[in-house]
Amino acid sequence: MSIGIGVIGTGIMGSDHARTLAGSIKGAALAAVSDTDAERASALAAATRAGRVHADGFALVADPDVDAVLIASPDPTHEDLVLACLSAGKPVLCEKPLSPSVEGCLRVVAAETALGRRLVQVGFMRRFDPGYRSVREALLTGEAGAPLLLHCVHRNASAPPSFDSGMLISNSAVHEIDIARWLLEDEIESVTVFRLPARTPSGLLDPQFLVLETRRGRLVDVEVFVNARYGYDVRAELVCEAGTLTLAPQAPVRLRSSGQDSSRVAEDWRAHFAAAYRNQLQAWVDSIGTGVAVGASAWDGYAATATGAACLDALQSGTRATVRMQERPALYDA
Amino acid sequence: MSIGIGVIGTGIMGSDHARTLAGSIKGAALAAVSDTDAERASALAAATRAGRVHADGFALVADPDVDAVLIASPDPTHEDLVLACLSAGKPVLCEKPLSPSVEGCLRVVAAETALGRRLVQVGFMRRFDPGYRSVREALLTGEAGAPLLLHCVHRNASAPPSFDSGMLISNSAVHEIDIARWLLEDEIESVTVFRLPARTPSGLLDPQFLVLETRRGRLVDVEVFVNARYGYDVRAELVCEAGTLTLAPQAPVRLRSSGQDSSRVAEDWRAHFAAAYRNQLQAWVDSIGTGVAVGASAWDGYAATATGAACLDALQSGTRATVRMQERPALYDA
Amino acid sequence: MSIGIGVIGTGIMGSDHARTLAGSIKGAALAAVSDTDAERASALAAATRAGRVHADGFALVADPDVDAVLIASPDPTHEDLVLACLSAGKPVLCEKPLSPSVEGCLRVVAAETALGRRLVQVGFMRRFDPGYRSVREALLTGEAGAPLLLHCVHRNASAPPSFDSGMLISNSAVHEIDIARWLLEDEIESVTVFRLPARTPSGLLDPQFLVLETRRGRLVDVEVFVNARYGYDVRAELVCEAGTLTLAPQAPVRLRSSGQDSSRVAEDWRAHFAAAYRNQLQAWVDSIGTGVAVGASAWDGYAATATGAACLDALQSGTRATVRMQERPALYDA
Amino acid sequence: MSIGIGVIGTGIMGSDHARTLAGSIKGAALAAVSDTDAERASALAAATRAGRVHADGFALVADPDVDAVLIASPDPTHEDLVLACLSAGKPVLCEKPLSPSVEGCLRVVAAETALGRRLVQVGFMRRFDPGYRSVREALLTGEAGAPLLLHCVHRNASAPPSFDSGMLISNSAVHEIDIARWLLEDEIESVTVFRLPARTPSGLLDPQFLVLETRRGRLVDVEVFVNARYGYDVRAELVCEAGTLTLAPQAPVRLRSSGQDSSRVAEDWRAHFAAAYRNQLQAWVDSIGTGVAVGASAWDGYAATATGAACLDALQSGTRATVRMQERPALYDA
Repeated sequence: MSIGIGVIGTGIMGSDHARTLAGSIKGAALAAVSDTDAERASALAAATRAGRVHADGFALVADPDVDAVLIASPDPTHEDLVLACLSAGKPVLCEKPLSPSVEGCLRVVAAETALGRRLVQVGFMRRFDPGYRSVREALLTGEAGAPLLLHCVHRNASAPPSFDSGMLISNSAVHEIDIARWLLEDEIESVTVFRLPARTPSGLLDPQFLVLETRRGRLVDVEVFVNARYGYDVRAELVCEAGTLTLAPQAPVRLRSSGQDSSRVAEDWRAHFAAAYRNQLQAWVDSIGTGVAVGASAWDGYAATATGAACLDALQSGTRATVRMQERPALYDA
Repeated sequence: MSIGIGVIGTGIMGSDHARTLAGSIKGAALAAVSDTDAERASALAAATRAGRVHADGFALVADPDVDAVLIASPDPTHEDLVLACLSAGKPVLCEKPLSPSVEGCLRVVAAETALGRRLVQVGFMRRFDPGYRSVREALLTGEAGAPLLLHCVHRNASAPPSFDSGMLISNSAVHEIDIARWLLEDEIESVTVFRLPARTPSGLLDPQFLVLETRRGRLVDVEVFVNARYGYDVRAELVCEAGTLTLAPQAPVRLRSSGQDSSRVAEDWRAHFAAAYRNQLQAWVDSIGTGVAVGASAWDGYAATATGAACLDALQSGTRATVRMQERPALYDA
Repeated sequence: MSIGIGVIGTGIMGSDHARTLAGSIKGAALAAVSDTDAERASALAAATRAGRVHADGFALVADPDVDAVLIASPDPTHEDLVLACLSAGKPVLCEKPLSPSVEGCLRVVAAETALGRRLVQVGFMRRFDPGYRSVREALLTGEAGAPLLLHCVHRNASAPPSFDSGMLISNSAVHEIDIARWLLEDEIESVTVFRLPARTPSGLLDPQFLVLETRRGRLVDVEVFVNARYGYDVRAELVCEAGTLTLAPQAPVRLRSSGQDSSRVAEDWRAHFAAAYRNQLQAWVDSIGTGVAVGASAWDGYAATATGAACLDALQSGTRATVRMQERPALYDA
Repeated sequence: MSIGIGVIGTGIMGSDHARTLAGSIKGAALAAVSDTDAERASALAAATRAGRVHADGFALVADPDVDAVLIASPDPTHEDLVLACLSAGKPVLCEKPLSPSVEGCLRVVAAETALGRRLVQVGFMRRFDPGYRSVREALLTGEAGAPLLLHCVHRNASAPPSFDSGMLISNSAVHEIDIARWLLEDEIESVTVFRLPARTPSGLLDPQFLVLETRRGRLVDVEVFVNARYGYDVRAELVCEAGTLTLAPQAPVRLRSSGQDSSRVAEDWRAHFAAAYRNQLQAWVDSIGTGVAVGASAWDGYAATATGAACLDALQSGTRATVRMQERPALYDA
């Protein structure tokens, strides 16, 4: 009766997803995992009692025990794996980005549009975060009036050495791009990126400050800072015509000691967004049962990559860049 | 492969539990529900796709598809139903109180002790609340030093007309009695209850203020107020030798409008403790699989009722009352 | 045109007051200081450009350049010095306690009543604290309804070795006694003191927990803890029929670093109540000009000492003690 | 012994200053007030017991009883009045702007430089606000590391109908320009202004979003919103290499009622910055006594106007504008 899920990629995110699916997602059975690192895949399968291990993601997609696929493999592999799922007619939850390239995203959109039904969900998990959902609900009550500006900060304690300046946008700020589109129900039209002088020999431009302008005349600003040291911190303030909505979740317990009144800041996104990740998975599994798509669509995945691409242009040019997007197919109408 | 759960009682709590079991508890299947109100039971069974409806709780306990039982029927029925589960060798999660009478609790303890293994869990869900767990974890780090005092407030927006003065203790403050024992790893020895003049024709003594003294010399004070009007509010501060731990969870979103900076207060305990209830159910179902008991035991249920009984004496007498408890059987050693 | 103020006692509080008077109280001139420690008095006089140094407080009271007197000398000297001020017809601001003995307070009340006009103010500075004043204003709007309970905590980082168990009441909790009377406009009728086992060889009973019952049926509870280590912390929650008012001032700046979101806790009462002390002095000096008494009266000083005395009885007896107070002379009607 | 102060301009700010000087600034005597509205000036003089009323500001400057001058008259009059003070050798506290024109500011700077000693203070009162001072002190401890970004919001409940788009910069954001220079000890080099579509027939561009880039490579962003409706709100977050400092002062009292946990937002800047205004006046009066200048200098006033002028250019052009500033005379070295 359970839906057989296959997880492609057993790195940090794939492992987390597999454990959550196996341990606390109702209606899901972990049918298979796959990874090019066979040892890592086998270890995860043993720990989660996954049904089967595949060396190859495409073999996993083809596995008849796999009813739906979760993709958490390296970014460049996403497009082809999602296309394989579409060919197989299997629902797929793909970690962001849908594809690192705008063209790759468009190929997925085209394939899904040709298919005529939505099978693809992109893992923008913030849409399932209780905090962001509360902001959206509060906005929809109208008490604060129409939205005007959205201020965002997105900080990580530290980034791996391989992180380059573009990844602050494509890997981090892309979450704000998606959440801004979702909260504002608006499309980003142009972008400006302000850079500070590099502070390390590597030349990493960190932090960066983005200003996004939307079709309907709103502004979104994003501080993205991947070596903020003190912890993981994601906050936002939505400024409306008659009031503001502030998302600034705090740990439920405060400690007073040694002259300080303090609460803990999360170490990383997995702790901060644990409920969001779980909710996303449960909603996805439930949506497979009902056939009603939820979460970010392939189109949202395309919009995020296209907007991110404009930000990368703006980062290099130092001037305002325009977001170029195609017309949205009717499949993605709300 | 799922564990078949039977839910006895389909009032507010029983319905909530059944829906949670059916919708989001991994490894559980809702095998049966029962209620003396057959219509209400059938409606719930339909909504949750429960396997079967029993008119009688004892028939549900005997149902071979029922592997474990959740009791949410009226308080006076708890004892006999728990004893039936013990006779049948089936794990049982019983909503508090284990029994309204001290003697009833002791009969359950005696039966379980005779059985020689723990099958009974009492539904003190706060032990599974992320906030209280954070307090306990923080306490165990030792950073704040040894605990000295625990201040508690427990407020409901309103109580039903049937609520009497004793129920502020047996129904509400009993949660603080359990959580104080759990947090402090200590037993309450004597109790004093301060009463304010009744404010309504019904003579309801609301709020009340309890001061509990423990064996190891700590103090616990509890304001219990069941018609606080503004909302449901449960907070605590644990004062230790070198610092304090404050549990005061806040909604993640703040609204600034009309001259106010505000956040929402929960309407009732179901909203406030939603995560606690879900976590409790998942842990209980998981514990059936592993065979390792979790949560409040029958002994904890007895201690809560015995301490509550002393509070009721103290409420009437206006003076300090002593908690009388038997020796704890070895089955309940940590 | 300025009012000449004489300050008796040049310890921590007297020095603070003298500096504030000299540096930032409009309309006040520091006419004289006195102390039995002549060297300390001279040093302060030099630092504050005080007009004159007296070895004796009574000489200061008699000094024709001294229009009004601030008493910050040791507690046992207060009564006679205040009586001298009354004899001289000079306004006096006396640090609490008005007198450590109930009889001493009554002698001051009798002398002032005989004089027929109010010259005595007692230094319960919290009545001038912006926070407590906000609580009172909020209460008076009626939005929260009638008051029912007042929860208080009063913590010091550490107490000097000379601090004994009674001083937790007479020196610390006496502030809560006064502020409760002022906020509730009510008189305390009976008191209970809960003690924890002493934790040091000195046998100091710290913390203590007081429960005060008022004539109009309200409850006030006070945790007083003079070796709380982490800092100075004074907070309160006033629970009313339709809502609660929480006084929990926070430093205006929060630091996020090293995994913590933190703000500073004050080191001591002088930092925490700096505005209250300044406001009290300005209001006192202004009141000398207008002739309209403000702040805590001699009667309030008597009530605080009488209530404190009952608490000391309750601390020793372990049972509820009754506060014995005389009838209030009409001079002290609001 | 008091310093005779003359206040020019008896509008809202001038009246407030006069009352504060008369009522709570030690060492100051209100020697005179002046206004072109003689009636208003006389009424204020009566209320504050000011020594004399002048119809003309220059006559006030010349008044031998006036030792120092506070200018709160309309902006275009500032320059000539300040120059008159310099000619008379009298200390002057001039409300911002020092002059609406860059050239006007430079003329004041030149005159003061020629005089060779600092007599001019500009009324950027935030430098005396306990909150901003705490931020600066915390920054100087080094605990958070070197500053990188400063996020600011500056909101008014409503602006008068006469407010035009440029005034959001010259009247409001100019405070952030000054405080950023003071906190960061840095000079603003270029500015970008993002505008949202006008929402009213008047065409007022409100809110606006400024991004300022400094010589030392820091970014400052400012949301300025003069019709935010809900109240007056000024907050900031200073992001540093190892942590962040957040200035977000809250009212000391929280009310829980009607399902909300709320605190008050200030109505206007006078309530929000009451302590800052008082501290500024006391520090100015004290500085006259000591001869050591404090607060924002004429140079700071020039820098604020010059930076504001660049922002106005940027607002019109829609592109980045460069701030043009002269070399700083040695008189203004720290």
